Amino acid sequence: MPDTRHAPTPILCKDLFHLPDGVIYLDGNSLGPLPKSVAARTQSMLTDEWGDLLIRGWNKADWFGQPGRVGDVVGALIGAPVGSVVMGDTLSIKVYQALAAALALRPDRKVVLSDSGNFPTDLYMARGLLEMLGQGHELRVVAPEEVAGAMDDTVAAAMLTEVDYRTGRRHDMAAITRKAHDAGAVMIWDLAHSAGAFPVDMTASNAEFAVGCTYKYLNGGPGAPAFIYVRPDLSDTVRPALQGWMGHNAPFAFDLDYAPAGGIERMRVGTPPVIQMTALEEALKIWDGVSMHAVRDAAVALMEQFIEEVEARCPQLTLASPRDPAQRGSQVSFRFAEGYAAMQALIDRGVIGDFRAPDIMRFGFTPLYLDAGDVTAAVDVLDDVLSNELWRDEKYRAKARVT
Amino acid sequence: MPDTRHAPTPILCKDLFHLPDGVIYLDGNSLGPLPKSVAARTQSMLTDEWGDLLIRGWNKADWFGQPGRVGDVVGALIGAPVGSVVMGDTLSIKVYQALAAALALRPDRKVVLSDSGNFPTDLYMARGLLEMLGQGHELRVVAPEEVAGAMDDTVAAAMLTEVDYRTGRRHDMAAITRKAHDAGAVMIWDLAHSAGAFPVDMTASNAEFAVGCTYKYLNGGPGAPAFIYVRPDLSDTVRPALQGWMGHNAPFAFDLDYAPAGGIERMRVGTPPVIQMTALEEALKIWDGVSMHAVRDAAVALMEQFIEEVEARCPQLTLASPRDPAQRGSQVSFRFAEGYAAMQALIDRGVIGDFRAPDIMRFGFTPLYLDAGDVTAAVDVLDDVLSNELWRDEKYRAKARVT
Repeated sequence: MPDTRHAPTPILCKDLFHLPDGVIYLDGNSLGPLPKSVAARTQSMLTDEWGDLLIRGWNKADWFGQPGRVGDVVGALIGAPVGSVVMGDTLSIKVYQALAAALALRPDRKVVLSDSGNFPTDLYMARGLLEMLGQGHELRVVAPEEVAGAMDDTVAAAMLTEVDYRTGRRHDMAAITRKAHDAGAVMIWDLAHSAGAFPVDMTASNAEFAVGCTYKYLNGGPGAPAFIYVRPDLSDTVRPALQGWMGHNAPFAFDLDYAPAGGIERMRVGTPPVIQMTALEEALKIWDGVSMHAVRDAAVALMEQFIEEVEARCPQLTLASPRDPAQRGSQVSFRFAEGYAAMQALIDRGVIGDFRAPDIMRFGFTPLYLDAGDVTAAVDVLDDVLSNELWRDEKYRAKARVT
Repeated sequence: MPDTRHAPTPILCKDLFHLPDGVIYLDGNSLGPLPKSVAARTQSMLTDEWGDLLIRGWNKADWFGQPGRVGDVVGALIGAPVGSVVMGDTLSIKVYQALAAALALRPDRKVVLSDSGNFPTDLYMARGLLEMLGQGHELRVVAPEEVAGAMDDTVAAAMLTEVDYRTGRRHDMAAITRKAHDAGAVMIWDLAHSAGAFPVDMTASNAEFAVGCTYKYLNGGPGAPAFIYVRPDLSDTVRPALQGWMGHNAPFAFDLDYAPAGGIERMRVGTPPVIQMTALEEALKIWDGVSMHAVRDAAVALMEQFIEEVEARCPQLTLASPRDPAQRGSQVSFRFAEGYAAMQALIDRGVIGDFRAPDIMRFGFTPLYLDAGDVTAAVDVLDDVLSNELWRDEKYRAKARVT
């Protein structure tokens, strides 16, 4: 029985999602499930728009305006004003754009500050950019708890992911942004594990840039387009490094010279992926009228229940996430030396979380399609896998290509 | 009646495409039409893969391997060996990657040579890269006919689109690549208007890099993923400028340091757009067993018929494309001072071509879904629009956002 101290989740809308029978899905922090209406909407986009309108779809179905239109929907979920967010490309590309623009704002400084809890691709993209610049920039990677103290007047830009993809540890966005600004640095936040997970207030944070993906808590589908936010006072002046025609102020004039569009549109690059963007646009309708504060409260209740039940029943596991929910995103991670095999055994029994090397078992909680009964049922299976050492089975030890 | 001197097109497979009633589609050079099977395949990807497999799709449906798998299919259509092409991002991004890699191969040279017939976004991306490098590089843009003569020992890389998007004028890829190599320059070809239009032989060309899009003659849908080719002898050593995790040699080890994957996989960047990639993968099945030489022969026959009929019946138009089909891609362009309004009048009557400023009316020919009867029917409508000056109607003069 679910613990009745945990309130029911008022924003539960399980029936809006395609959830396979026998599955408890605790991996929406990696890839959100399919919202049911996406299949029909994608079908109509294919046949009624691409099929019937053909090239006319760019105007008649406003495919051209879609990256900005969807950007405004995402913007509303991260506390960003209309016209400050645009969709496109992948998160890696958006990190690159944001960092290149940030460095151009601080040409006299040479340090990019990040932390070892950042998602690796952010660090890879930064290194590639800095190497190519060849101007003696340094990527300084410190432990997450050392970030605030490392903010000094050499730092051109601080580039952090708010929520650690392994442990769920959450930075204090407002406090760190203040530290960055006090040191004269530009602040870039990666909201991959924030958008759709809990309230974000980009305006209040005062950070210059934010980027994120939409296939996790926003349920946009595998490889859904990324987003970029530029603080409105900067968006008419930042110089895009990736000067694509869709960010030109007159893309269909076909001038040989580049002139950036006004505002956030200049952060567009190439032709947007309309099929994928349409699936995302439909998926985002789930959020109509949903309070992100209510989502957060319900997610915290689910996480607290999960931690409590796991710690009571599965002493083999050690909590890897911060115990204080205020310092945590919407996932709970436990360490277990045989975590890889144990996670395969769980998945084989319909409890889908994931594993991050070397020993992290990750479980994501999103109250749109999970309730207290799911949490207890998941812990039942986890208890079975651990108590009976079901993870010892050889079939759970073969490494998959993607973990 | 179609001119019987023009042979029927043996590769015609009109029934495989969704073509609206009353439309003659002469804009496949901008956005190819929907292959009928794409709708069902995309539906099954959404429900059976994303819906049922959830995160397991990366392994079980091999979403992870898809960019390379689809790359091999595209590779076969452009004369590139298995393992030399990978899909992802947009063409703008792929241009950037190719140029950054090319410049790294010629660190002692400072000129990027291109021409005024290149698609503007290629030039914009190049300018953005060169400005960011800040090493005194120059983007030298000459007239298309001056490219060969401009190839000298200052040129680090020559970056050209094989077929001019406005006129259809086609470069001699083999000859220009030889010129580039004789001058010690690296050669980059943009195949946007080549792939799927006629035979391309990347191996024979000996060019180092090629890039292209898949939403034109390859019918992958609006915003379909782009491709990049790297000559096999270079693909283990080129240093990617956009160091995304999907191009890492062990993306799921989550190392903080970047180490590129072996071969073409290093040109991957972020998480691939799986829905869009699946639509493309299905669309490419159209090409199973189709001879690109037969496609080319049939396209030339359609174009010759079109030019002949237009010149006989529409003296208001002036041919803007090369008269020799060997110097032309798979489109025919005519100049007409009122081309914008005339094209709107044509589209209003179901003959869909497009317009490029200042006065180019473009018509694309692809024998997969067009035959000689379509050509004559299109010229009938064109003749009506011009002879009766139907383009004078005010409703055809309002500029659309996207032209």
